[in-house]
Amino acid sequence: MKKLTVIKIGGNVIDNSEKLHEFLKAFADLKGNKILVHGGGKMATKLAAEMHIEAKMIDGRRITDIETLRIVTMVYAGSISKNLVAQLQMFGCNALGLCGADGNLIKAKKRPIQKIKSKTDHAFREIDFGYVGDLDGNSIETDNLVKLIDNGFVPVFSAITHDGESQLLNTNADTIASALAVGMAQHYETSLVYCFEKKGVLMDVDDENSVIREINPIKYEDLKAKGIVADGMLPKLHNAFEAINKGVKQVYIGKAEDLSELERANVFGTRLVI
Amino acid sequence: MKKLTVIKIGGNVIDNSEKLHEFLKAFADLKGNKILVHGGGKMATKLAAEMHIEAKMIDGRRITDIETLRIVTMVYAGSISKNLVAQLQMFGCNALGLCGADGNLIKAKKRPIQKIKSKTDHAFREIDFGYVGDLDGNSIETDNLVKLIDNGFVPVFSAITHDGESQLLNTNADTIASALAVGMAQHYETSLVYCFEKKGVLMDVDDENSVIREINPIKYEDLKAKGIVADGMLPKLHNAFEAINKGVKQVYIGKAEDLSELERANVFGTRLVI
Repeated sequence: MKKLTVIKIGGNVIDNSEKLHEFLKAFADLKGNKILVHGGGKMATKLAAEMHIEAKMIDGRRITDIETLRIVTMVYAGSISKNLVAQLQMFGCNALGLCGADGNLIKAKKRPIQKIKSKTDHAFREIDFGYVGDLDGNSIETDNLVKLIDNGFVPVFSAITHDGESQLLNTNADTIASALAVGMAQHYETSLVYCFEKKGVLMDVDDENSVIREINPIKYEDLKAKGIVADGMLPKLHNAFEAINKGVKQVYIGKAEDLSELERANVFGTRLVI
Repeated sequence: MKKLTVIKIGGNVIDNSEKLHEFLKAFADLKGNKILVHGGGKMATKLAAEMHIEAKMIDGRRITDIETLRIVTMVYAGSISKNLVAQLQMFGCNALGLCGADGNLIKAKKRPIQKIKSKTDHAFREIDFGYVGDLDGNSIETDNLVKLIDNGFVPVFSAITHDGESQLLNTNADTIASALAVGMAQHYETSLVYCFEKKGVLMDVDDENSVIREINPIKYEDLKAKGIVADGMLPKLHNAFEAINKGVKQVYIGKAEDLSELERANVFGTRLVI
């Protein structure tokens, strides 16, 4: 079975042109089939400020109104996507800057109005998140994606999807990376790589050299019980094991700057595996 | 030899959502291989105004400074491209929203500083057009484009190109359409369709029903001599015949609203042919 690596980078890489340059070089050098998924970073917020458009929040939650959708489409699918592609092409990587509407590759459903517990007074309130798209098991148009990959293209996805009825939607980039990896697991031996701020899951949060190299479900339960894995790491690891349960071979969590290690030494951040 | 139709639409279609909807429906219905090239319309000017960025002009000529490049990349390759694709997907057309950097499909050269006769005092002055890309005979990466088309994808191009060294560039959409048609003429029996404001080349500019159905080079010389083809039509027809001389089978000039006629009756606007 052919191999595929799905890599997700976040705003901390996008916003730092030196880091980004180094990461893209390492990504271009990575052998085999690959997909890049990128978050947004601060550029959308910056553009909104330049346009004097205020971020719409309800009860501390970010809402994607029509103006915000317009901005993220321009910034994520336009400016960031095409600049990433131009750099990757310079490094000899045959990138295509895509969103979920392209090739119908990622179809989402507009999030219905939800009754959610308020962060402030804990009462339940109806919240319309606006133009936010949620994914399900049928979101990825795997046939079209396989065609692109098998023809030597490297898909670079911004976190914009569509509903199939001409509406673009804003979708979480982590969720997209996971859905792509799970969808592609039918066709390739798929690895999913989440790049974030730290070198991996740490035994000691204050010590970057305490990376736990491998976590399986038994160790995961143990780390949870001991309180070593807590807070923001819990949903990350939960989602990672969910992807593995759905067919992804392994999930790595580590630092974008270390990507070249994945190829060179096969030690990159923390490897999650069953 | 398989057939391919390259269609270019301009701002007058992009800016009118009803016209655009109808055009995209007709485009989706068009049988066979096809490519869409779109211009920008007024959205970039509108965004620049919202961001309080003034259009940079030198001697009456529009300059693409770095801010303008950022805006056109966001608007053309982001907002317009992805919204066109989402609509085309709704109509069952397997569109991919691309710029020239994607798949290295259109490589341009940054226009060098040029000595140009001033429009006002007729003196020669050096003008730096900024981030503007010019095309040549090697600009189109035909192999990659053929792979996309032969796998059933419909490329939708915004008029953004790259230089291969990670720099995006702003390029004239008519020029892109022509270069794509010429490049693809090695692989397909290629027709090029320019949509503009009128129903075709008119015998009488004030009579929309006076469309000249076919023009060959002899008739072209005759129409020029009689002054029937003049002003803005001259470069259009000149470029059209140049494309035909480089292998394009035929060039149509007509109205976007009439596109369905091309399929139905094979009479659309004016057909230019050798």
